[in-house]
Amino acid sequence: MNIHIIGIGLIGGSFALDLKAFYPQSKIVGIDNCKEHLEKAMELGLIDESGELEDVVDSDLVIIAVPVDVGIGLLKKVLDKIGDHTLVIDAGSTKEKICTAVATHLKRRNFLAAHPISGTEFSGPEAAISELYRNKTMIICEVEKTAFKLQEKALEIFRHLGMRIRYMDAKSHDKHIAYVSHLSHISSFMLGKTVLEKERNERDIFDMAGSGFASTVRLAKSSPAMWTPIFQQNRENILETLTEYISNLNQFKSLMEENNFEEVYREMEKTNHIKSILNGIN
Amino acid sequence: MNIHIIGIGLIGGSFALDLKAFYPQSKIVGIDNCKEHLEKAMELGLIDESGELEDVVDSDLVIIAVPVDVGIGLLKKVLDKIGDHTLVIDAGSTKEKICTAVATHLKRRNFLAAHPISGTEFSGPEAAISELYRNKTMIICEVEKTAFKLQEKALEIFRHLGMRIRYMDAKSHDKHIAYVSHLSHISSFMLGKTVLEKERNERDIFDMAGSGFASTVRLAKSSPAMWTPIFQQNRENILETLTEYISNLNQFKSLMEENNFEEVYREMEKTNHIKSILNGIN
Repeated sequence: MNIHIIGIGLIGGSFALDLKAFYPQSKIVGIDNCKEHLEKAMELGLIDESGELEDVVDSDLVIIAVPVDVGIGLLKKVLDKIGDHTLVIDAGSTKEKICTAVATHLKRRNFLAAHPISGTEFSGPEAAISELYRNKTMIICEVEKTAFKLQEKALEIFRHLGMRIRYMDAKSHDKHIAYVSHLSHISSFMLGKTVLEKERNERDIFDMAGSGFASTVRLAKSSPAMWTPIFQQNRENILETLTEYISNLNQFKSLMEENNFEEVYREMEKTNHIKSILNGIN
Repeated sequence: MNIHIIGIGLIGGSFALDLKAFYPQSKIVGIDNCKEHLEKAMELGLIDESGELEDVVDSDLVIIAVPVDVGIGLLKKVLDKIGDHTLVIDAGSTKEKICTAVATHLKRRNFLAAHPISGTEFSGPEAAISELYRNKTMIICEVEKTAFKLQEKALEIFRHLGMRIRYMDAKSHDKHIAYVSHLSHISSFMLGKTVLEKERNERDIFDMAGSGFASTVRLAKSSPAMWTPIFQQNRENILETLTEYISNLNQFKSLMEENNFEEVYREMEKTNHIKSILNGIN
C-alpha cells in the first residue's frame, strides 16, 4: 500500500507508526511544509521517505493531519490530484467547514471526514506514539457521501488501529465537540493564565500546586497553532459553550457571595455523577 | 509510639499506612464519627484499633484529617485533653481560621498547622494509599508557634514520608492555595456541570469525550462534604480568584466575538510556558 501522510506531527506521525506495524509492506511518504519535521520524522523512522503534494497522484491512502485552517485548501488540492481508487481521510477537529468546502467536488466520494478522539497536549513528530488510537473513538461524518468500497477500506484500517466507530453529521459533531473538547481547552488556558498572572508577584505559588492543578491545567500546554484555527472554525458553537460556562461560574460565585453553602454543596453533588461517565473514558 | 488519627479517610488513612511502615512498633488508633469508616479501616489494616476522642490523653502524635469546618472544634477539644509531650498536626486545606481559633490556647505550642499538597479525587478509607506523600510538599504555617522539640518530631515524620517542607504564614497560605487548588476545583465542577446540562438532551455527547476532557474535569469527582467547608472558610480569597478567572474567560470570549484570532493565538502562547512550571509538579 502506498500511503501519504500530510502533516507528520502527533496525529499524522502516530498514524504512520501503527500503519507501518499493520502494513509492513507499505511505503509511507511524509509530506510537511516544515523541513525540520520531515527530517525528524525520517530520523525517528515514522516515514520511509519525504515527498511533495504532487506525489499523491498514485496514492492508496492519503491522511491529512494539519491545522484545520490549512486542511480545507489542502484537501481540495489533494482531491484534484488523486486517482479513482485513492482514499483520503482528514483527521481535523472540526468537520462542518471542510465537508461544506468539498461538498460538490468531483472526487467527494474519495473523501472520508473523520475525527479521532485521541491525542495528547504535545505536538510535532517527537510527540507521535504507537497505539495512540487503541480503544479510542473515531467519529466519521456524513459517511454516506464516501464511496462504499473506500468506507470498507477505512473501516479495516480503523479496526487494525483498535478504534470504535461513531457516525454523526458534521454539524452535530462540531456542536458536541465544542462541549467535550474545545471548551475544556479554553477553561484550562484561562485557568493557567489566571494563576500565571498572580504568580508574577508571588513567585512561590507553584510550590503549592499539586496534581489536581496539574491535571486541570494540562491542556494549557496545547499548541496555539493547532487550536487557534479550531476556535475560529467552530466559533459560534464555542461561544455558546463559553456563555453557558461563564454563566455557571457566575452563578456559583453568587451562591458563595450570598453565603448559600447548602446550594454550593448541592451544585457539587449534582455534578459528582460525572464519575460514572468518566469511568467509561479513561 | 502511640498514634491517634482522627478522620480515617484518604488523608488520615494514607498517613496511617506510611506511619506503620516507618514505625512498625507503634499503635495506631483510628477515631472517626462514621462507624463504617472505622470498620473499613480495621478491615483494610489501616489502623490497629478504633478509639474515642478521650483516648488522645496519652498520645504521642494526633493527626487531624477531617473536613475543615469540623476540624476547628475538634482541635480545641484535642488540645484540651492532651499531655505536654503530644504533637497535634492538622492536615486541613485552609489554615487561617484554625490558627486564629487556637492562637491563645494554653496548648498552642503542641499544635503544628500543616497542609500536605497531596491527594486524589477519591475519599474514604478505601481511597487511602501508601506513599501518597512521597515527593510532595508539606506546607507548615506559623511554625514559630510550635514547641521546638515538637517541630523536630514533625520534621522527622515528614522526612520519613519523603516530603519537602515549605514554611508560610497562614494568611498567605490561604490566599495562594485559592489559586492553585481551590479555583481548579470550581473550574472543574462548573465545566462538568456545563457539559452534563447539555448532555441531558444529547445522550451521545460523552462518546465524543477524550482524555483531555477527562483530565480537565477530574476534580469534579471530589467530595462535596470535604470541599464545601473549604470554600466557606476561604470564601474571600476564592471569590477574588473566581472574579479574575471569569474576567479572563469574558475577555477571551470577546476576542472570539470580535474575530480577533491573532490575539486569541497570543493569549494561548503566553500561557504555554506553564509547561515548564508543570514539569516541576508531576
